[in-house]
Amino acid sequence: MSTCIAVTDSVERWGVFEIALEGKTAGNPFTDYEIKGVFQGDCEHKCVDGFYDGEGVYRVRFMPSFTGEYTYKIYGSFRDGDAVEGRFMVTPAGEGNHGPVRVSHVFHFAYEDGTPYYSIGTTCYVWALQREELQEQTLATLKDSAFNKIRFCIFPKHYDYNLREPYSYPYEGTPCDSSVLTPENFHDYNGCAPGNDWDYRRFNPKHFAHLERRIKDLMELGIEADLIVMHPYDRWGFSLMSKEEDDLYWKYVIARFAAYRNVWWSLANEYDLMPQKSLADWERYAAIICEKDVYGHLRSIHNCKQMYDYTRPWITHCSVQRIDPYLSGERVQEWRERYQKPVVLDEIVYEGNIQHNWGNISGEEMTRRFWEGAVRGGYPGHGETYLAEDHILWWSHGGVLKGTSPERFKFLLQILQETPGPGLKPYVPNPFGEDLAGTVDSLIPVPYYLYYYGYRRPGFKEYYFDDEKEYVAEVLDTWNMTVTKSGAFRGKFKVELPGREYIAVRIYEKGLLAEYPQ
Amino acid sequence: MSTCIAVTDSVERWGVFEIALEGKTAGNPFTDYEIKGVFQGDCEHKCVDGFYDGEGVYRVRFMPSFTGEYTYKIYGSFRDGDAVEGRFMVTPAGEGNHGPVRVSHVFHFAYEDGTPYYSIGTTCYVWALQREELQEQTLATLKDSAFNKIRFCIFPKHYDYNLREPYSYPYEGTPCDSSVLTPENFHDYNGCAPGNDWDYRRFNPKHFAHLERRIKDLMELGIEADLIVMHPYDRWGFSLMSKEEDDLYWKYVIARFAAYRNVWWSLANEYDLMPQKSLADWERYAAIICEKDVYGHLRSIHNCKQMYDYTRPWITHCSVQRIDPYLSGERVQEWRERYQKPVVLDEIVYEGNIQHNWGNISGEEMTRRFWEGAVRGGYPGHGETYLAEDHILWWSHGGVLKGTSPERFKFLLQILQETPGPGLKPYVPNPFGEDLAGTVDSLIPVPYYLYYYGYRRPGFKEYYFDDEKEYVAEVLDTWNMTVTKSGAFRGKFKVELPGREYIAVRIYEKGLLAEYPQ
Repeated sequence: MSTCIAVTDSVERWGVFEIALEGKTAGNPFTDYEIKGVFQGDCEHKCVDGFYDGEGVYRVRFMPSFTGEYTYKIYGSFRDGDAVEGRFMVTPAGEGNHGPVRVSHVFHFAYEDGTPYYSIGTTCYVWALQREELQEQTLATLKDSAFNKIRFCIFPKHYDYNLREPYSYPYEGTPCDSSVLTPENFHDYNGCAPGNDWDYRRFNPKHFAHLERRIKDLMELGIEADLIVMHPYDRWGFSLMSKEEDDLYWKYVIARFAAYRNVWWSLANEYDLMPQKSLADWERYAAIICEKDVYGHLRSIHNCKQMYDYTRPWITHCSVQRIDPYLSGERVQEWRERYQKPVVLDEIVYEGNIQHNWGNISGEEMTRRFWEGAVRGGYPGHGETYLAEDHILWWSHGGVLKGTSPERFKFLLQILQETPGPGLKPYVPNPFGEDLAGTVDSLIPVPYYLYYYGYRRPGFKEYYFDDEKEYVAEVLDTWNMTVTKSGAFRGKFKVELPGREYIAVRIYEKGLLAEYPQ
Repeated sequence: MSTCIAVTDSVERWGVFEIALEGKTAGNPFTDYEIKGVFQGDCEHKCVDGFYDGEGVYRVRFMPSFTGEYTYKIYGSFRDGDAVEGRFMVTPAGEGNHGPVRVSHVFHFAYEDGTPYYSIGTTCYVWALQREELQEQTLATLKDSAFNKIRFCIFPKHYDYNLREPYSYPYEGTPCDSSVLTPENFHDYNGCAPGNDWDYRRFNPKHFAHLERRIKDLMELGIEADLIVMHPYDRWGFSLMSKEEDDLYWKYVIARFAAYRNVWWSLANEYDLMPQKSLADWERYAAIICEKDVYGHLRSIHNCKQMYDYTRPWITHCSVQRIDPYLSGERVQEWRERYQKPVVLDEIVYEGNIQHNWGNISGEEMTRRFWEGAVRGGYPGHGETYLAEDHILWWSHGGVLKGTSPERFKFLLQILQETPGPGLKPYVPNPFGEDLAGTVDSLIPVPYYLYYYGYRRPGFKEYYFDDEKEYVAEVLDTWNMTVTKSGAFRGKFKVELPGREYIAVRIYEKGLLAEYPQ
């Protein structure tokens, strides 16, 4: 009765191997039946859940972490009869495929193949749920950017500047009437507005298939997909589902998305704005991920005013929203010390000019916050909220970037990628603690120092490390994106500086890096 | 044997009434004899110490706080024979004379005649000990500025960019050789350098008379003289005197300067950089002021890294140096709540471009810090440290201002002077606590709100206070120093904003202020 309708005989390492099978359609296939897969290679053995994809088709996905021959066995109540078995080859990773991102050296990241990953993120909450052309425009913008991570939602979003209907819905049913919404009254529709009619036990597979397409598009651009699985900005009731409905959703999401190597799990955006969910709920979702995501993708949860306890064992990295109107990147050292995990600053407020105070800083200030965070060994994230007549704001919809900071992140990324080690850690050289630098985050000291002066405008600076080594000093204009070699020095030395804001000075032992100009 | 050599028969209220008498010169007149005065009017009775002014002349000074006829009696061991007695008239205060500045409404200041005083201070540590022409230039600069308070030292200063010999010395003796000093070696001369030969029990009256001339010059410009009585930047040993020598100095300073209405006492600059002085020492100096300064001039002490306990009863106001590289004016609310006294931010770092991180912010950042502090009801102070070939830096020497912030303080002062009440207090209107405004610091609410957006660049903002009153909204560009009336509103209303940094919005009930343009 059931046929194997799709299977490839080879896949690259960290690629997605997928088996599609026909199965039962009676009742509710999303809840009434199960499909599981077992995958076996020389170096790993994984059992994963599959999922119902609609129209009688069930799928199981698998991301192999090793090369060589694998076997698989698909079974479950979704069909009658014996398990479906087969074999496939895993070929070496292709160009640009470095595997999933992992935590590296406590505070940093690297791809599974060992390549360091310096996160430069952005946020476009529902870019993938806009009209098709706008999504394509977003991908084109991303392609030409420094961003290597993007945070976005699975559920549609109901919020200021984002009141239109989404591209698709995650469930079968009909939405409430959005034609009555205005910037003034939209708060009245928070939660589950009148007129919604959803079956929270029947997913809309097209919605998820579409998101998978976008996750793959991002993967091809080398961009991590930081999936926000839950959020409070809701008028459809998706934030108000029962425990059982939530758990069903989590399992479906994991079964569909976990095999994509560029997936990160963000349990929530602003979990603390969801009073309907208790800490026990978040911990339960976390337990589901830990059980069901057999690949150990990165996991975190994003706060609004109240930091989550990022020491929880399931959390791989902090996903911080700044909790102070003035300080963000400046607090990285405190968070590193407290949480002993990578500090990703997923919201340090956004470049723009909207009325909300989290969305109206300048490109200069955004770039400054990035550098303040980055030299301390944190990983800041971007967002953009410029008022627009068409209400297309990058932070929510994607589209084109209008701000002046993203261009500067290319320069920052280049400098970070030149770090002779896994990442940076704070280096506080003077007794007043105000001359801030980063140095290589390794147990063995590396003679490499990246000073950042931010809003300060010194006309010169003096440095002293030791009397033996010869040091190269370079003046980095982080705004104008230039590197100027100051000279090579021994002992105590003085570097003339332009007396402008946003200057960094990179000092390293001669020979450690290729010197500019190259 | 002793003659009354100078006495006027009238003085204005809060002016300086002075009697000069010849007296004994044998031994050490600074320590061996005393001179005291008793002054009696209808409303006050004061006993003050006089002082030896050199060349056989002793002086007693008195600042009357009331008008009408006063009598005086001068006595003491400085001469043999009966007390010298006389009478004089105190006339009403002349134009521009509002009396000494007092604390007003817990957190603010007013002159004794009730006129509010909104402090806009600057720091020129040893402007009065530079060559004569430079001092005159400083006075001319101050005359054309918004500054109504200046912090400066009685002792000369030994520090970076300030290694020359001072105009004069406070004691009889000879200084160490300063010709050997360089920017590199000057630290080796900290404290009491070899070659000093001072008699710390014999003052140089010319030094003090010169400072009095400058205090009077400031008084005529309506500028408060915030006298830094002690400080750590020393190569002459003035910071290392014995307890007895210190106390002698304090009494001499008070006897000479206390009768000038514009004097404030700053016990120290950066008291915590003087490990040779204990807390008990500072408290002893404070007790001397409280006893000897019969006029109750404002009293404080300035910190470096460690705030003094500003709750001490003798302290009239906080004299804060920012203790965080990023935050200064932003912390006013915390300090107001903790200390329940006016918060004067005497050092929020300086505009300039020197190598030290306390001296290289932009004019924009300086102006921003002023506004952040001022809207919260604090009183920020300025300083300027631009590198100069002649090593004339305003912060130390005075001269001319090169920065861009001082011009903007005129606008701020104008806005503060238009406050319909004693000063501002923080007003936090929204639940996120990030829309910051000041409102009138009074028990009865005044419909007056001064929002400040600082680095934020909202394109518009919405406000709501009540449905009844009609409000006027004005957009203040604190950098370009313009006031643009937005309109008059009732209920919830929206104000269009330029989407630039450094914008304030002033909202008040129609009729409360004269509206712009006037």
